[in-house]
Amino acid sequence: MTAVAEKQVQNGVNVAALLGAREALGKAPEAARFNWRATCKWMHGTHSRTSIKGYYGLGQEQSHKTEFTFDMDHPEVFASEDNGATPVEMVLTGLAGCLTAGVAAVAQMRNLQLRSVSATLEGSMDIQGILGIDADVRNGFDGIKVKFHIDADATKEEIEALVAQSQKRSAVYDILTNPTNVSVTVS
Amino acid sequence: MTAVAEKQVQNGVNVAALLGAREALGKAPEAARFNWRATCKWMHGTHSRTSIKGYYGLGQEQSHKTEFTFDMDHPEVFASEDNGATPVEMVLTGLAGCLTAGVAAVAQMRNLQLRSVSATLEGSMDIQGILGIDADVRNGFDGIKVKFHIDADATKEEIEALVAQSQKRSAVYDILTNPTNVSVTVS
Repeated sequence: MTAVAEKQVQNGVNVAALLGAREALGKAPEAARFNWRATCKWMHGTHSRTSIKGYYGLGQEQSHKTEFTFDMDHPEVFASEDNGATPVEMVLTGLAGCLTAGVAAVAQMRNLQLRSVSATLEGSMDIQGILGIDADVRNGFDGIKVKFHIDADATKEEIEALVAQSQKRSAVYDILTNPTNVSVTVS
Repeated sequence: MTAVAEKQVQNGVNVAALLGAREALGKAPEAARFNWRATCKWMHGTHSRTSIKGYYGLGQEQSHKTEFTFDMDHPEVFASEDNGATPVEMVLTGLAGCLTAGVAAVAQMRNLQLRSVSATLEGSMDIQGILGIDADVRNGFDGIKVKFHIDADATKEEIEALVAQSQKRSAVYDILTNPTNVSVTVS
């Protein structure tokens, strides 16, 4: 046990703070209510620009250190100008970031040193859905495949368990695999 | 009819090309199969970087004009470095871009001139889920609200119908409101 406790892995995740937050928020569940926000402005054609800065959590307004801005567009094969990634690629990006952060956090918690982590994602889609050709074809992805490549000071089984635990606690994995209510209004 | 036909609205969407694609792909459904891709690299802690460039569609490999790169991270209130938007904010960004592109495309199709379109999105989440405090709390959003503000040469009813049709054909709206299979493997 002493040898294990002395090995300090450095994945860059502050596990003590996360465990502290878990204990604190378990006693004050109101502070665990977060609202994440995005503001989008139409530019021209299918091109839009979205800004991310403020959010609500821990009982008060919060802010990112800087504003993050994302251009989105459709590609040239859709007769658009390709001024940004497509909206569905942004969804894959969110899934990639969520699972990868989870792998790092769980590795830190389990005292496993990561050397490198990469992932390739593929979302397949039959665009007969969005084009309105076939009402039986869904608009969204008909499936997503995520392949992780992980080099770590750990066994194959430990690495597989890391990824499984990341999925289990991933916000975006849950958002994609389960339905969420989306209300859209106009003013 | 002549007066309507002569009014040429300029929302920047090539409707003729989209209608042509609809006709062509209806006859060649194999070409309608797309694969969208993302490649993610872990940087440090909860910070990752995702690249978007190639995709498959119209029966062959395709490529965006440029590579799009996105940093994601957790914010300082999660004891992270806030080097990018959070993964769940990327999901909101994708939804914003998808619905906004749809509004522009439908407006062009219906010959309605848009002057400005903006949207604010809010995704609420109880982080007791991702922290593992309460197994009955889901990890993802418990709901998303999208509010559009649209100034257009159109009636209130026409504007509401634009947004409704955009939802009906939106890939990301479908992805969020319905479940999608996500397979995660490790190599």
